[in-house]
Amino acid sequence: MWSPDRNSGTTLYMQIAEHLAQKIRCGEFPPGSGLPSERKLAGQLGVNRSTVVLAFSELRSIGLIESRSGSGTRVSLADSEETPKHTPNWSQYADDSSMVRNPPFLRKISEALQQNPELIDMASGQLSGDLAPTQEIAEIMSQNRPMSYLGYDNPQGYPPLREALVRYLNRHRGIDTTESSLLITSGSQQSLYLIIRCLLSPGDAVAIEDPSYCFSLPMFQTAGLRVFRLPLDQHGVQPEDIRQLYKKHRIKMVFLNPNYQNPTGTLLSEERRRKVLDIASELALPIIEDDPYSLTAYDGEPPAPLKALDTTGSVIYIGSFSKIAASGLRIGWMAAPRAIVERLADARQQMDFGLSVIPQQVVATFLDSPQFVPHLERLRRELQFKRDMVTAALRREFQGRAEFLEPRGGIHLWCKIGADYNENRLLEQSIRNGFVFGPGSVYGSEPGCLRLTFGRANAGDIDRGIAALREAAEKLDLF
Amino acid sequence: MWSPDRNSGTTLYMQIAEHLAQKIRCGEFPPGSGLPSERKLAGQLGVNRSTVVLAFSELRSIGLIESRSGSGTRVSLADSEETPKHTPNWSQYADDSSMVRNPPFLRKISEALQQNPELIDMASGQLSGDLAPTQEIAEIMSQNRPMSYLGYDNPQGYPPLREALVRYLNRHRGIDTTESSLLITSGSQQSLYLIIRCLLSPGDAVAIEDPSYCFSLPMFQTAGLRVFRLPLDQHGVQPEDIRQLYKKHRIKMVFLNPNYQNPTGTLLSEERRRKVLDIASELALPIIEDDPYSLTAYDGEPPAPLKALDTTGSVIYIGSFSKIAASGLRIGWMAAPRAIVERLADARQQMDFGLSVIPQQVVATFLDSPQFVPHLERLRRELQFKRDMVTAALRREFQGRAEFLEPRGGIHLWCKIGADYNENRLLEQSIRNGFVFGPGSVYGSEPGCLRLTFGRANAGDIDRGIAALREAAEKLDLF
Repeated sequence: MWSPDRNSGTTLYMQIAEHLAQKIRCGEFPPGSGLPSERKLAGQLGVNRSTVVLAFSELRSIGLIESRSGSGTRVSLADSEETPKHTPNWSQYADDSSMVRNPPFLRKISEALQQNPELIDMASGQLSGDLAPTQEIAEIMSQNRPMSYLGYDNPQGYPPLREALVRYLNRHRGIDTTESSLLITSGSQQSLYLIIRCLLSPGDAVAIEDPSYCFSLPMFQTAGLRVFRLPLDQHGVQPEDIRQLYKKHRIKMVFLNPNYQNPTGTLLSEERRRKVLDIASELALPIIEDDPYSLTAYDGEPPAPLKALDTTGSVIYIGSFSKIAASGLRIGWMAAPRAIVERLADARQQMDFGLSVIPQQVVATFLDSPQFVPHLERLRRELQFKRDMVTAALRREFQGRAEFLEPRGGIHLWCKIGADYNENRLLEQSIRNGFVFGPGSVYGSEPGCLRLTFGRANAGDIDRGIAALREAAEKLDLF
Repeated sequence: MWSPDRNSGTTLYMQIAEHLAQKIRCGEFPPGSGLPSERKLAGQLGVNRSTVVLAFSELRSIGLIESRSGSGTRVSLADSEETPKHTPNWSQYADDSSMVRNPPFLRKISEALQQNPELIDMASGQLSGDLAPTQEIAEIMSQNRPMSYLGYDNPQGYPPLREALVRYLNRHRGIDTTESSLLITSGSQQSLYLIIRCLLSPGDAVAIEDPSYCFSLPMFQTAGLRVFRLPLDQHGVQPEDIRQLYKKHRIKMVFLNPNYQNPTGTLLSEERRRKVLDIASELALPIIEDDPYSLTAYDGEPPAPLKALDTTGSVIYIGSFSKIAASGLRIGWMAAPRAIVERLADARQQMDFGLSVIPQQVVATFLDSPQFVPHLERLRRELQFKRDMVTAALRREFQGRAEFLEPRGGIHLWCKIGADYNENRLLEQSIRNGFVFGPGSVYGSEPGCLRLTFGRANAGDIDRGIAALREAAEKLDLF
């Protein structure tokens, strides 16, 4: 965020006036739009209110803004000329969109984190910096291999990365696949988006877990799908529920996250895995298996994915490096029947013309490097350590008033801290206490639950974070 | 593409059988699906047909495939058990999609280029390898700056890149903007996709140039928009046509590519630029200005973009590094009112969760480096040289039977070589002659025209390429 330069030769108020004038000229504040109040702007820029008063006065004097008592300060409308001039009604364009916005809680959390990077973050679904293989990636990049031509990528993704993934999936996930059955995406989000937008049509019915991944919910809504829920217990979904939904609603796809599920951390039991596949092949029903967390299994032995057990080609498998390496790489993939991969690759040309080759080269090299497996081992140890910290802190601070299942892998813990609390008030109080978490409702859950992502917080902050949450709950008289 | 290893200890036919078995097991060829014919597969793998016959026989012997006279070879259906098992009808899922496929010509061209990398490519809208700053980018990457944490990016894009772009747009395009008015995208394709999907609704009317960018046309169709056309002459669109379309159809947006337009290479005249802006502000009509080519102006003086002349905030400006650096970077941006940037940044979270930070860091460094301006100067000289080669070759080979406008910037030349030729036959004959071009119809144009992208072909191949085109035209008796 811009702020005035106190060592500059120009006075603070003139710097501010010039800055605002530029924002007005470039359309950021279009004619007729409101400016922030003097008090608010002074707070944002870290100056006295009187400095902003002077800046506004300067802008009024050149006719750029107008202040009316009661209605604040607005950008002047363009001078009347022969033909009146109008700015498009941009807010209307933004509001008319048929795309559903992300839940306000997610935006509130994201804004809180941008405004205060010191917040203890147990809301963002990613790893902390010390868990990412930052050093390994920097070394790969510095090796400066002679770069091939940086043209548009192959529509299915960089071929050497697909080759490395075939080996990776075979070795680490027991999945036999081929390069031509793989589509590289920018992550699970893009994989889900492609499947939802390109293989389903408005009015189609689908089944998802309850609760479910928060950023997938608005996507289903925007696509006009009818969404039915599969409640989770400690062993995952009940396979027979899938058959019931098929009978009642002719669901066309089932979305599952069987390993250390987001947000609940649960593991689909092996017996249920086989049952899910039996039902899927009985009904010729596609299963979308989202599997970003399996390699974080703390004991180093993740269960076999549905895709590896699938003998009838019922499963599209979605993977990602966001939760086992770094989300900023933006590399994920799906393994699917070739007809699907080709269809989605063609569709993606219309959306973004594919990914940059640079991070794909980095990941392909990292996957085949001797550093990859040691990185995974370290990641598992550290995540287990953080899991232990968070469960100990919850027991200590909440004294039995927080119910949770101890996850055996992944980065999320799902916790029930009291029936029917006011999520908004608890979130706001927590943020004031320096701590941010994922309110249960953004995952489509009943009130009373919340998601604590111990993957993202630094280990040294977890105790303070959980204490801040307990203080916020006490302040709201939740106990 | 996989091929058997002649130096392996395993016989060729067993390698092929094993390879096919793997593809069947991983669902690439699901139960019941057809395999390629023995003859076709032999051609693809570069082996004798008898080798494939042996491989098929092997697979039949283990019950994996079935051959019936007259209906070719199919993957066996899964063994009948108590409950019959079914594979989802994946082809149906792929076909039912509400997303319009890209034009068959584009897929034909892309397949031809993948099968034969020696084809002289005047079809792909990008630069040749020697024009990209490959060395400069490799050097930036090798400098190995200590990497900040590779987490999810800011929803609007990497802040240092936005800061560098503010300077770049001011210096090179005369555009005053701020970081908060910029959204980094993966290129113009994603910028257009976001605008079309998030700011417009099915049934809305828009105006586009005639002819227009080929990959935008299916996007408009998929979004259910009513698309009206603004015919181009040598000075671009006629501004009054915009007013007429607004009166008749209440168009909600106008999409323009004013500088060295794709595909025609034309430049919107300065007088018409001002007129377009007057009409836009009179009607409060948003203009989407796509400007990827302006910095290739051969005389080094690109005209001022609409965005720089826009005093009412009517223009969303779309830029990209694909045509002035390398398309494989996948970095573009838009400058727009803040309400729009925030809306689109939120929507993109549902699509792909933003870009990798790695190429953004590379581009930010390159933009501020002393190598950037010399790179642009070299690019302009070389593109002008290629333009001269292609126009000379057209005159020499076609002897007045090819009509074209000489572009003064950009990478495309639009050429009319005869009324009403059969595009499919000319493209196929050209490909047989070793040359590929963009058939006019994929840009929505009347027959008889084609796009020659001299930016992509190597200078040393241009003469041979145009000769191959002329030979194809003669073979089809077009003259």
